[in-house]
Amino acid sequence: MDFTISNKIQTLVGTINEFMDKEIIPLEPQFLVNDFKDLLPILKEKQNRVREMKLWAPNFPSECGGMGLSLLEHGLVSEALGRSPLGHYVFWCQAPDAGNVEILHSHGSRKQKETYLNPLVKGDIRSCFAMTEVDMPGSNPVMMETTAVKDGNDYVINGHKWYTTGADGANFAITMAVTNPDNPIYTQASMIIVPTNTPGFRLIRNIPVMGHEGSDWASHGEVMFESCRVPQKNLLGPEGHGFKVAQERLGPGRIQHCMRWIGICRRALDLMCNRANKRVITPSGKTLGTRQTVQNWISESAAQLEAARLLTLNAAWQIDREGAPNARNAISMIKFMVADTMGKILDRALQVHGGLGMTDDTILAFYFRHERAARIYDGADEVHKTSLAKRILKTYKPDVNT
Amino acid sequence: MDFTISNKIQTLVGTINEFMDKEIIPLEPQFLVNDFKDLLPILKEKQNRVREMKLWAPNFPSECGGMGLSLLEHGLVSEALGRSPLGHYVFWCQAPDAGNVEILHSHGSRKQKETYLNPLVKGDIRSCFAMTEVDMPGSNPVMMETTAVKDGNDYVINGHKWYTTGADGANFAITMAVTNPDNPIYTQASMIIVPTNTPGFRLIRNIPVMGHEGSDWASHGEVMFESCRVPQKNLLGPEGHGFKVAQERLGPGRIQHCMRWIGICRRALDLMCNRANKRVITPSGKTLGTRQTVQNWISESAAQLEAARLLTLNAAWQIDREGAPNARNAISMIKFMVADTMGKILDRALQVHGGLGMTDDTILAFYFRHERAARIYDGADEVHKTSLAKRILKTYKPDVNT
Amino acid sequence: MDFTISNKIQTLVGTINEFMDKEIIPLEPQFLVNDFKDLLPILKEKQNRVREMKLWAPNFPSECGGMGLSLLEHGLVSEALGRSPLGHYVFWCQAPDAGNVEILHSHGSRKQKETYLNPLVKGDIRSCFAMTEVDMPGSNPVMMETTAVKDGNDYVINGHKWYTTGADGANFAITMAVTNPDNPIYTQASMIIVPTNTPGFRLIRNIPVMGHEGSDWASHGEVMFESCRVPQKNLLGPEGHGFKVAQERLGPGRIQHCMRWIGICRRALDLMCNRANKRVITPSGKTLGTRQTVQNWISESAAQLEAARLLTLNAAWQIDREGAPNARNAISMIKFMVADTMGKILDRALQVHGGLGMTDDTILAFYFRHERAARIYDGADEVHKTSLAKRILKTYKPDVNT
Amino acid sequence: MDFTISNKIQTLVGTINEFMDKEIIPLEPQFLVNDFKDLLPILKEKQNRVREMKLWAPNFPSECGGMGLSLLEHGLVSEALGRSPLGHYVFWCQAPDAGNVEILHSHGSRKQKETYLNPLVKGDIRSCFAMTEVDMPGSNPVMMETTAVKDGNDYVINGHKWYTTGADGANFAITMAVTNPDNPIYTQASMIIVPTNTPGFRLIRNIPVMGHEGSDWASHGEVMFESCRVPQKNLLGPEGHGFKVAQERLGPGRIQHCMRWIGICRRALDLMCNRANKRVITPSGKTLGTRQTVQNWISESAAQLEAARLLTLNAAWQIDREGAPNARNAISMIKFMVADTMGKILDRALQVHGGLGMTDDTILAFYFRHERAARIYDGADEVHKTSLAKRILKTYKPDVNT
Repeated sequence: MDFTISNKIQTLVGTINEFMDKEIIPLEPQFLVNDFKDLLPILKEKQNRVREMKLWAPNFPSECGGMGLSLLEHGLVSEALGRSPLGHYVFWCQAPDAGNVEILHSHGSRKQKETYLNPLVKGDIRSCFAMTEVDMPGSNPVMMETTAVKDGNDYVINGHKWYTTGADGANFAITMAVTNPDNPIYTQASMIIVPTNTPGFRLIRNIPVMGHEGSDWASHGEVMFESCRVPQKNLLGPEGHGFKVAQERLGPGRIQHCMRWIGICRRALDLMCNRANKRVITPSGKTLGTRQTVQNWISESAAQLEAARLLTLNAAWQIDREGAPNARNAISMIKFMVADTMGKILDRALQVHGGLGMTDDTILAFYFRHERAARIYDGADEVHKTSLAKRILKTYKPDVNT
Repeated sequence: MDFTISNKIQTLVGTINEFMDKEIIPLEPQFLVNDFKDLLPILKEKQNRVREMKLWAPNFPSECGGMGLSLLEHGLVSEALGRSPLGHYVFWCQAPDAGNVEILHSHGSRKQKETYLNPLVKGDIRSCFAMTEVDMPGSNPVMMETTAVKDGNDYVINGHKWYTTGADGANFAITMAVTNPDNPIYTQASMIIVPTNTPGFRLIRNIPVMGHEGSDWASHGEVMFESCRVPQKNLLGPEGHGFKVAQERLGPGRIQHCMRWIGICRRALDLMCNRANKRVITPSGKTLGTRQTVQNWISESAAQLEAARLLTLNAAWQIDREGAPNARNAISMIKFMVADTMGKILDRALQVHGGLGMTDDTILAFYFRHERAARIYDGADEVHKTSLAKRILKTYKPDVNT
Repeated sequence: MDFTISNKIQTLVGTINEFMDKEIIPLEPQFLVNDFKDLLPILKEKQNRVREMKLWAPNFPSECGGMGLSLLEHGLVSEALGRSPLGHYVFWCQAPDAGNVEILHSHGSRKQKETYLNPLVKGDIRSCFAMTEVDMPGSNPVMMETTAVKDGNDYVINGHKWYTTGADGANFAITMAVTNPDNPIYTQASMIIVPTNTPGFRLIRNIPVMGHEGSDWASHGEVMFESCRVPQKNLLGPEGHGFKVAQERLGPGRIQHCMRWIGICRRALDLMCNRANKRVITPSGKTLGTRQTVQNWISESAAQLEAARLLTLNAAWQIDREGAPNARNAISMIKFMVADTMGKILDRALQVHGGLGMTDDTILAFYFRHERAARIYDGADEVHKTSLAKRILKTYKPDVNT
Repeated sequence: MDFTISNKIQTLVGTINEFMDKEIIPLEPQFLVNDFKDLLPILKEKQNRVREMKLWAPNFPSECGGMGLSLLEHGLVSEALGRSPLGHYVFWCQAPDAGNVEILHSHGSRKQKETYLNPLVKGDIRSCFAMTEVDMPGSNPVMMETTAVKDGNDYVINGHKWYTTGADGANFAITMAVTNPDNPIYTQASMIIVPTNTPGFRLIRNIPVMGHEGSDWASHGEVMFESCRVPQKNLLGPEGHGFKVAQERLGPGRIQHCMRWIGICRRALDLMCNRANKRVITPSGKTLGTRQTVQNWISESAAQLEAARLLTLNAAWQIDREGAPNARNAISMIKFMVADTMGKILDRALQVHGGLGMTDDTILAFYFRHERAARIYDGADEVHKTSLAKRILKTYKPDVNT
């Protein structure tokens, strides 16, 4: 075992952290008060800086214009980027585009790559991923009502999706729909590319989440597919392989999310410590940091952060070496453990800020309300705990004592 | 011991609950999407209905136009009103006006009552309470930088306040300022009535809290007092009695808050149970409510709600019988215990709703983000725990084993 | 609502508390080091004192020699007695004898009362209750392997029980056995009185629990029924009514347990506070009680104790007024809530004592290890949470939003 | 970063695990019921087997008869040994002997090594470490009342110690005493070797801990030094260096403890899973493992175990590379984090066993009650949290926002 981080990655992460501190974090006050759309021009500038620094799309394969980092390496980058809600977007590895790039790169036809992957990698267009349905539990892939029925050379899609992140302004949606209802359960659905200007694709609304509808990338769409017709060549990968492909995305996507959450934890811990050192609470000048309760929070947060971080990096290492299917337990564990850790650290950081923590004068209130979703998206924590436990229990014979 | 609730109060609470369900809760979707200001006309209508039903200002003394309920009785009313964020406002017992009415009623001069109390009780004007300061810990009354210096017949006030709830649109502010800096620590400050149209009273901004600045009553002001001059006859109560009077408010205010939180818990539990019964999660039709984790949450929430409720009603009963000073321990306990209970129940209710819980399609996301403040305002929970423990430890002799 | 405790009960509880402090708690060092059996002579003396004070068997009906307290009143007595592990035994209201008295009083024949109830009430004999089985989940009454088969005028009983508290030295066992295997599930079992000197009743061992086998009342027996033959007139209540009668016991038994646990909480809080005041941790003489973490524990413990206590007293009041069947939800809630509260308070009290807390120089280590069982016996907490939630969910219509 | 465990260590750990399963774990029922002293003969046999397998004293330097493993490697061994309370003793790396070997090896004179180190390494004698005092907080090294005063060629030692583990049967005690009361605070105490047959060294009692006094190695002594006279050449290391040397021990000792705790966690998780698979709870044959609450516990336990394990191995790696002083934060973190994790996992494992978990029919009840001490010894967790937080806060400038 060797916990050394290579010089290459240390330097890279150092550069990114510096860029984040100087260029990105100062944009947050604008981000908190304005529409995301209004920030696009300045974000484009920052993205150009990232391209110039050759840091564009760190997790994309180098053959399609990214840095080609391993998952463990990208994890460390994602941690640095997670320190601001704008980090991943500016470095162009934001969900769901990063996942869509992976899918198109692995499963797209040459034509699909030309039309969709290339401009997406360059940052010329954005995309979205339409899977979750309003009336169906997102955690149960078997329950999907959206259908794609063949008609001539086309698929005709009908269905009702939501939490289609970034649908507002996206160029196309990778859409999950049942194409083979008579197949065995896990092979009924397929992924189909649907350009958002296709008739019958309707963005009903940006869902108001925690008080805001958001806009552009920073929004979650409710989308109706109404006899939405696309050519069958828009099928992505083989028919009936929708869940299989979605599963593949899961490992790398999980690492990116969890390391982003670790970055959020680190930011929150920094804010908590700075506040603890600065806030005077007695006439004689004692600070909040002299209070044992605050000290407990700092120490527990620091320890939990490190533990969650190592667990996630270990999962990334497993995926890098053995592939996601062999790392399933590790991938499940980090989902609920890192989400839980982040929730606790954000809560403590907010509390240490008192009334200030409730305001948008720091980033904490934003993280507190929006990252609450971490325990829900990609499958509620409870679902992951159940499926992990079932896998663990299978490794114990029913008739053995220890 | 007798836990019976009188028929009178059972009927009253039943009436209020029905009104809340039929008239107030249906306004929430508008409340969540629009500016509070835009709701004022419809809220006025509802307030008229309340006046007609003779339910106006349930906690105000009957001689000044209220229902004259005991604290325990008002607690039960507050629970019913707390089931929506609009309840207290419509029944005109919202903070900080309810507290200001108490202060004016007990300590105001005849002239002050005429000018400020009477229209306030009727609902013709609103008021605010300017105590918390930006750079000073709200929990430490000794640390206050706002001063009121005598000059001729006036006080000249300088200082920087925030979390002045409802400053936007208020007619006057009861302002806490140091008038006697040479007095012993707890008798340095006084309460002074400052009409908000006084030159030198400046509402800098409605603080953006959890993503929203709010407006009118539903806002928290940052206020600058810049050589703000008011006549000395605006002094409320004796000079140097500011903290003493503020303390008096604390008990009844705490009961109202805590029972309001209990009402929020009840609403959240109802939403959680309805969702658990309705949300189908398997193709064979099993609901979320069949999952043991959800069952745990429901049972724990129900038990914690009942326990917190009894603790609060017991505190109200103690205040009614022995006065707030003799009920200090009970008043401290409910602060952190009910706030903690509410936080847990809201968190579970949101989780049971999954993605829907994050949206503004239910009231939960609003409560989740805004009621996070319950652990902070009126003194952070940590401060109450420390002071309660000190009082408890004093009752144990240092040299005795048990 | 009126939280007043009557003068009668205040005086009674005061007397008991004083007796506990002077006569019972000083016996604990002996109790912790010696066999329970060796304490019997001194305990008999104390019991005689209790009889002289007319405080014998506080919860037994007055017509059979007890004080005839209401359940709420007895709850307050149980709290006082719970402050030492010896309290209930000395006042002769210990489990399982207290429950057996109830059953015999309500369902025993005249002959059974003469033979078993009368000497039991007087304290001349002890009894036990043989229900839980080794290989069957105690929480599921449907799963019982012990059978009682009619043969001539007798029942012939076969089965394997454990956690038969106080079997060692008991005069008889109220035994639950399946008499009517063809009946509907809840009416298959009956209660049968089995004198422990009956051939075929074999006490295999006192189960070693947390390092000790214990003895006499302070033990848990593993019992084998091997063709154990008793006359059919030993049937207690009607055939097939075993679970019905066991259910009846549950409410009052729960109140007694939970208030006993509250007594333990109070004892632990006292020890914690005294230790916090006495233990010097700095050269300048600062005590543990000056540490904010300890203060947090004291305040949280005090608040949780009060809340759990009110919840339990409220449940007792409901049973007194409406009967146990109408108070089922309250009876379920206190099981897991009070057990949880006790676990937390004991853990904190132990931690405040540091190394001393691990020793038998205080009572805390005893409570810590033995009262861990509170979350298990009378049905694991998890079982109660599930059944409570199911009852709660039934009160919500599946098709209603709130 | 590379999480690979070398083949050498994988093989070693595999061998040890097998030996534990076949030879050591089967001794536990005897260990739980009998005096430790009575087990010595069979344990000696097992120790001979360990010597034959060349696995004796894995953490001792090879030049003094051990295996010379790195700390990270020994950590993995300690995890395997921790799966039974007897593991470390049989492999002769048990506290406090392992620490005493380290101290004697690094600081002992040639004569001291001959007399004490050599037979100790071989397992011919045992030793103890007398530091903690009854009336002084163990966590505050400044507060020590034991003194060693020079008189002729001797030290005359007076003091009152407890929690001197294994004093019963030990050959000598490394004793911490104030030799230089006028020195600066951290250089007042020295370590002195005191043979236990020295007049004035008196073992008052084996402290009854959680119901048992224990014996031999498995005991904690209360020791009185009464004008106990030893030659000055028994000084270990330079005078006044007592705390410095004690500090050095801390890092490696912490790793061994924490990885032992991880071993306990693993054992508990195994027991929990086997029980979940085996225990049938419904007539239709459903097992405990089908219950979602149990599934939650298994998944949370598995994730917490892995996270705590990686955190500890990372700390070991830091110590191996940079020395303990540079790894202080990591060493602090694992103290409270692993102890907390162990406490949670043991609690869940016990609960899954129901009534059986309370008995000594499994090892869980032993671990539950005795390992409660993990949050206390080597400094209460609260002390570590405070000191860690202070070190963290120093790394933040007081005047910087992030």
